[in-house]
Amino acid sequence: MRIVMTADHAGVDLKDELAAWLGEQGHDILDLGTNSHDSVDYPRFGALLAKAIADGRAERGITVCGSGIGVAIAANRNPACRCAQVAEPLSATLARKHNDCNAIALGARLIGPEMAKACVDAFLRTEFEGGRHQRRVDQLANPTAQRETA
Amino acid sequence: MRIVMTADHAGVDLKDELAAWLGEQGHDILDLGTNSHDSVDYPRFGALLAKAIADGRAERGITVCGSGIGVAIAANRNPACRCAQVAEPLSATLARKHNDCNAIALGARLIGPEMAKACVDAFLRTEFEGGRHQRRVDQLANPTAQRETA
Repeated sequence: MRIVMTADHAGVDLKDELAAWLGEQGHDILDLGTNSHDSVDYPRFGALLAKAIADGRAERGITVCGSGIGVAIAANRNPACRCAQVAEPLSATLARKHNDCNAIALGARLIGPEMAKACVDAFLRTEFEGGRHQRRVDQLANPTAQRETA
Repeated sequence: MRIVMTADHAGVDLKDELAAWLGEQGHDILDLGTNSHDSVDYPRFGALLAKAIADGRAERGITVCGSGIGVAIAANRNPACRCAQVAEPLSATLARKHNDCNAIALGARLIGPEMAKACVDAFLRTEFEGGRHQRRVDQLANPTAQRETA
């Protein structure tokens, strides 16, 4: 699978560890940085992830910051991206089954690498259930309409 | 504090329990539904929450669905809303300190009411740290610029 990965400085080590592990499994990794511990602003790296998905350069995305919160908010500003913050595999599974999430956000200061791998594994292996969930996923792609009728 | 609350059918019971508990503490609750167990589409309730914050009708928001994932994505489609999915109080604390989050999303099928209350308590009591975090929060309000430079 073609997977885009981004992180801020707090998430770069976990991103790199996950990228190497996913590469060994045969996945094709598009690493859009950051690639050092120098301080960067997480909104740019959430936006980069979402744009790669919106442009069709990747099927799935994994983004990492200290808590997972900032990059998830930034990624979800793009209506093409459905990014779930996850800290355990059940949420990653539900994000796929019910929300057809095409991205997950991980918090490198909150979970360790083995938990992160379990989350990624659930995210990549679980299929969307469709059915009644499809209508809701479609609504997430049209936030202006949602806002105007809200 | 003026707090807007929304939920889908999976989150309505937890929303109502939290609303009663927050009301007893003297908070002013703006309950925008849903108010039954009839199936509804979560994107609308994420959008309603974000719009109430954007319009200045509430300072903070709490939204609930089965996992917290769907309503968080929907709320974050509105650039005025910074919504963190939280399942434990440390994430709620970091969401305030670092991301100045004005909303949290809870998963009624994943956490129990006491854990939810601990998350809400951390969310309402923690102040934003400002400083280097302010620039990043400002960037989250301008997603188009982020997307174009991404």
